[in-house]
Amino acid sequence: MSAVIERKTIIGKRVPKPDAPDKATGRTRYINDMVLPRMLIGKILHTDRVHARILSIDTTAAMALPGVHAVLTGEDSPDLRFGPTRDNFPLKSGKVRCIRDEVAAVAAETEEIAQQAIDLIKVEYEDLPPVFTPTEAMRDGAPVVHDDHPDNRSLGYEFSHGDIARAEAESDIVVEHQFEVPYVTHCCMGPSCAIADFDTTGKLTIWSQTQYPYNYKMDLAPALGIHPGDIRVIQPPVGGAFGSKLDVYPFEPICALLAKATRRPVKLTFSREEEFINSPTRQPVEFRIKSGVNRDGTLTFRSVDALLNNGAYTSWGPTTPVIQMRTFTGHYRLPAVEYRAQAYYTNMVYAGSFRGYGNVQATFVTASVMDMLAEEVGMDPIAFRLKNAQNSGEVTPQGSILDDCRLGECIELVAEKTDFLNKHKAYTDQRKQTARIQRGIGIATTIHNAGGAKIHKSDGCGTMLKLDDYARATLITGASEIGQGIDAVLCQIVMEELGIPIRDITIVNDDTALGPWDVGVHASRTTFIAGNSALRAARAARKQVLDAAAKQSNVTADQLDLREGHVVQADNGVPVIRLDKLLRQMHFGDEPELVMVTDYYEPNSVPEDKNHFGNLSSSWAHGAYVAEVEVDTETGEVRVLKMTVVQDVGRVINRLGIEGQIEGGISVSLGYALSEQLQISEGRVMNPNFRDYKVMTAPETPEIELHFIESDCKEGPLGAKGIAEIPAIVPAPAIANAVYNAIGIRFHAPPLTPEKVARALHGAPQQ
Amino acid sequence: MSAVIERKTIIGKRVPKPDAPDKATGRTRYINDMVLPRMLIGKILHTDRVHARILSIDTTAAMALPGVHAVLTGEDSPDLRFGPTRDNFPLKSGKVRCIRDEVAAVAAETEEIAQQAIDLIKVEYEDLPPVFTPTEAMRDGAPVVHDDHPDNRSLGYEFSHGDIARAEAESDIVVEHQFEVPYVTHCCMGPSCAIADFDTTGKLTIWSQTQYPYNYKMDLAPALGIHPGDIRVIQPPVGGAFGSKLDVYPFEPICALLAKATRRPVKLTFSREEEFINSPTRQPVEFRIKSGVNRDGTLTFRSVDALLNNGAYTSWGPTTPVIQMRTFTGHYRLPAVEYRAQAYYTNMVYAGSFRGYGNVQATFVTASVMDMLAEEVGMDPIAFRLKNAQNSGEVTPQGSILDDCRLGECIELVAEKTDFLNKHKAYTDQRKQTARIQRGIGIATTIHNAGGAKIHKSDGCGTMLKLDDYARATLITGASEIGQGIDAVLCQIVMEELGIPIRDITIVNDDTALGPWDVGVHASRTTFIAGNSALRAARAARKQVLDAAAKQSNVTADQLDLREGHVVQADNGVPVIRLDKLLRQMHFGDEPELVMVTDYYEPNSVPEDKNHFGNLSSSWAHGAYVAEVEVDTETGEVRVLKMTVVQDVGRVINRLGIEGQIEGGISVSLGYALSEQLQISEGRVMNPNFRDYKVMTAPETPEIELHFIESDCKEGPLGAKGIAEIPAIVPAPAIANAVYNAIGIRFHAPPLTPEKVARALHGAPQQ
Repeated sequence: MSAVIERKTIIGKRVPKPDAPDKATGRTRYINDMVLPRMLIGKILHTDRVHARILSIDTTAAMALPGVHAVLTGEDSPDLRFGPTRDNFPLKSGKVRCIRDEVAAVAAETEEIAQQAIDLIKVEYEDLPPVFTPTEAMRDGAPVVHDDHPDNRSLGYEFSHGDIARAEAESDIVVEHQFEVPYVTHCCMGPSCAIADFDTTGKLTIWSQTQYPYNYKMDLAPALGIHPGDIRVIQPPVGGAFGSKLDVYPFEPICALLAKATRRPVKLTFSREEEFINSPTRQPVEFRIKSGVNRDGTLTFRSVDALLNNGAYTSWGPTTPVIQMRTFTGHYRLPAVEYRAQAYYTNMVYAGSFRGYGNVQATFVTASVMDMLAEEVGMDPIAFRLKNAQNSGEVTPQGSILDDCRLGECIELVAEKTDFLNKHKAYTDQRKQTARIQRGIGIATTIHNAGGAKIHKSDGCGTMLKLDDYARATLITGASEIGQGIDAVLCQIVMEELGIPIRDITIVNDDTALGPWDVGVHASRTTFIAGNSALRAARAARKQVLDAAAKQSNVTADQLDLREGHVVQADNGVPVIRLDKLLRQMHFGDEPELVMVTDYYEPNSVPEDKNHFGNLSSSWAHGAYVAEVEVDTETGEVRVLKMTVVQDVGRVINRLGIEGQIEGGISVSLGYALSEQLQISEGRVMNPNFRDYKVMTAPETPEIELHFIESDCKEGPLGAKGIAEIPAIVPAPAIANAVYNAIGIRFHAPPLTPEKVARALHGAPQQ
Repeated sequence: MSAVIERKTIIGKRVPKPDAPDKATGRTRYINDMVLPRMLIGKILHTDRVHARILSIDTTAAMALPGVHAVLTGEDSPDLRFGPTRDNFPLKSGKVRCIRDEVAAVAAETEEIAQQAIDLIKVEYEDLPPVFTPTEAMRDGAPVVHDDHPDNRSLGYEFSHGDIARAEAESDIVVEHQFEVPYVTHCCMGPSCAIADFDTTGKLTIWSQTQYPYNYKMDLAPALGIHPGDIRVIQPPVGGAFGSKLDVYPFEPICALLAKATRRPVKLTFSREEEFINSPTRQPVEFRIKSGVNRDGTLTFRSVDALLNNGAYTSWGPTTPVIQMRTFTGHYRLPAVEYRAQAYYTNMVYAGSFRGYGNVQATFVTASVMDMLAEEVGMDPIAFRLKNAQNSGEVTPQGSILDDCRLGECIELVAEKTDFLNKHKAYTDQRKQTARIQRGIGIATTIHNAGGAKIHKSDGCGTMLKLDDYARATLITGASEIGQGIDAVLCQIVMEELGIPIRDITIVNDDTALGPWDVGVHASRTTFIAGNSALRAARAARKQVLDAAAKQSNVTADQLDLREGHVVQADNGVPVIRLDKLLRQMHFGDEPELVMVTDYYEPNSVPEDKNHFGNLSSSWAHGAYVAEVEVDTETGEVRVLKMTVVQDVGRVINRLGIEGQIEGGISVSLGYALSEQLQISEGRVMNPNFRDYKVMTAPETPEIELHFIESDCKEGPLGAKGIAEIPAIVPAPAIANAVYNAIGIRFHAPPLTPEKVARALHGAPQQ
């Protein structure tokens, strides 16, 4: 028997993702690498018009091409509709409404034949007058995008709390601002891909990149006219998702329709150009925000109007007001607040969900406005924020319960760590000098759901956990791994409870036939929800194991612990029996048992009522980020020198994972702040490649300093909160605020490209 | 709400195998069809000697060939030993012991390059004197196959019950016979294949055809020098197994060693010729059997000596005496019985397990001898058997408890259905005529374990069962589907308990990381053991569902039933709620729950003690088969006209499945009786192809008439017993007895080829 084994925790340690070595060494088999026997290649003919009637589609030549197995048009399935508001079609018939529209699709033996066939399809159109902006779309007599929406109105939201009129009348200062946030896209390294295969009974297996496999079945089914129970989703490793795989997009049902037509597996992959044009974007919004504040710095009210370009079809983009709203109404104490959002159909591309889901847009506005209001009342940005920050126990107008609110603590700590006030003042003073390089510092904060978000009927996650004869664990979870690192977190939880090394744990979460239900990867929820379910399952397994050990050794289970593959005496760490040996004894003993446990965890959150009220998340978290920048006043180039992060993470589970999430989030937000914009001119994407669409890469990454507030969330697994979106939300406005601090110019529309900054500095009209 | 739903049972119905449509339409993706990215092709250099010292292996030219990634010899891993007695090596070093011996292996970019590399390897040998038969091998001074076994003795078995000497002395008649059963091979349509891939932490994933995935890990590990917990076995659909995949064979560790050496996935497939030479055979045995009987037809004793050719290495073949023994000692009532078996190493190929596992060999002997003894005492074969058949409640000398023995019933029914006695007498009489075509009828019976066989520490099987929101079920079972049809049986059990259609059930049993433990597919055990576990899991799920429904509708759960996707009132079939709707209410309700249950079933059988005593199986079953044949006395050709089957199956679950199992078994046994023999001359396989090795095909299949005795086994799932091996055991001796009935010649060594029969008829010496 080995020597005494101390209890060592793995929680809070830096644990590499189990999938990292394969990804780093090129061994990972992404869906894009997959080849199935008899597999055909699918390809889509996208329209070249933005709004046009389809007069005819001639597929004769394509059909006749040797190696072509199917050519489909919208006429083959005119009644299939899908999407959150059922306004989208796998293949379009009658007319096209945006540059993405899929007018035909082929399945062929090879990529080359498929492309040749696409080139052989002849489509005749009659162009229709287009409409590109919400403002145009709402005008009387505007071209109509969908006949069943003659006013072009898509989704709308409204919330009101308190007496705005009175608050406005009584406010010392009332200011109004406009902001506009752009189209950006996710830029996943793995372009969109699906493989579909029907069995002989009409059941579909789809190898998909989806990040919400269970509800995906529900959403894909109407696009195919089959029952959602007849769909099995298998998820090979995915090269990035970031919210872009949280809905069904036309290429997926098209791939499946081709498989159905050919009775063979069909694979459909986007080229990079197709990916830029056809994959969802972040929702662009035009904001009008009116804010009231008293001379003492107390916020009195906030009134926000959001105008959303719906594009031609509805994915999740126009639903982001649900989360925008939570920030506008709940970030900082507001006696009165109102928020209205309206989306309009246009002939533009359409937006989906994107890490931060509405809060990216909202926080760019609120964090900018907070600085502007502070200046208005003559307070520094820290004091002004602290003045209005909520305390623990407060409830926001929408019912978000801030039972343990660390907003003030976040602000104070980040200010202290960055010497914010001194620098802020110094840089303000330096603006009067005319140095080419100006420095600035800026803060931004946000609130975000950190315990899931009950926007569906359930926000739960299921787990099945088994241990084998060698003390190897398999955790079957509903929660998907999309690169965010949940596998490592779940391993740590199992390790902590069962005392086995990470190498001995297999996480299975790539097949809906196997996994118990989960709502999907969104809303920073996976560590919180799947973590809780895994924790409960691991504790049930631990109990079963320790009960068996206790029975053998005539002690009670609570006198025992599991450490490093052994059952040990809890008080002194003296080994009692090796875990694998105990498991074999349980298996092969007189009352044979295997360790197999299941759990379903549903958080205690509450869906919104029809007035948008309810504690949507089991937990809320704040973050305060400070950006330090240099602005080259000659070229307009903004360089971020450092980002200092203070974030309430509840409890650090995987330190490396949180670091990675924050660093990645900062990179996304840096792009949003400074460089990324999908340039769309009259409905056409002008920069569908990485030369013209500039993402941030390693050289542009600033120094990052991280400070975690471990508030030990009561409901969170081992105290953890969800952390993944805040890093993608806060940096951009912190940078905008820092740029203002550096050069005294307020930008109301990211990205702050060198061109835009230079034009602002040198007097040319801002574009 | 739909109309009244009657309870209809699916048990006993003809249910097509869920995998049948894919197999029939060529859609099934067998392991042989699989391609992994970066996959290399492995190939083995087998020796061309039967016993020789390896002087040198020159791999220089092979290594230098472009596209070759690894060349391995036994020198790379001289210490790796595996096999039931650890006498085998993945690659051989020092010397070769049989024609199969693997002296080198390569991994290359393509099959062609791999073959070229193999051809470039030069091996120098010094031949050693060989030994081919047990009789030669036991002689003093015989060549030694393994240095650590200087007497060439391999496994030995001994059992004795009662006073043989006295029984022999007191018997009215004592006769002695010799039998010899040949090498036959499984002839799986899918040749042996494995794909191996190591991850960066040294864990192996092996895509394998194995039929015992959990213990396979344990058996494969020493062949690789890794921990069994580090092996994950994935089982794509397999083109036949029949016992041939119940052990590890050298190509599997070789494939893995190549993967380890190259750090890439490696696939290794046998050609048909390699398959014939290198895959395991059925165990050949030479029997000497002495039998005593009194004038009244009472058996007095049986004494059996079995001599086994072990071949060069030990797989399961030499362990088949464990099952031979049960038949020799337990089939018919024997006051005294003894059995001795001894295996000797030779320079021959070696045997594994094969459907029937020893009982094929034993029953050929016992069933032939029973007819000979009947003739000896002047009784008909039916009366003689009935005289000695056990009754319910008897216990065999080895402790097999025949608590519900249907042997007599089987014999009586098959005699009645075939008009046996009249025909038998008529054909005996016809022998005196000299017609070219002579007819004969013959009976054979056997006993076989029908409730598993506890030859390992556990004979259990685990199950995890979940239902999703659409009332689709996934059953994760440890039990493998190797074509025997277990998936259909498990589906039926789930259907019966949960009232859902087969299309809505997914069986998952292809991955050891997912499945709970099972001992493997052998011993006719899967329906019994996995079926019991599935039944218990399904009943647990049923309880959870009905409890929830009862709570809603203010009745007790036992007042409800599940039928055709609905909860109904049990007494009148009036629907209460759709099952899927109920499941969603359970999932999305106030106390959210998913239906996920687990079960581990261990049968109540007992392992043998060191004296081979113990009730090895939870249940025993008998079968009585009658063959009707025509013998062409000119050509010696035997044609089986009809096979009439009476078998105690406990309860029919899948009628189609049982029919298929029996028909398939008969085909195997027909080959054993009439045509199949692996011809081995001085250690070399002379007929490694389907032209020279004659398997039975559709045209040779006789009319088959089936009668099932449904004894409603107390321990069996819904009353079922294991049924799969008896059909492969009994037909051959029934045919031999029928041939005797037709032409009056007793054959002591199958197969009864036309050549052998003609030689016997025409006076030429029998070969």
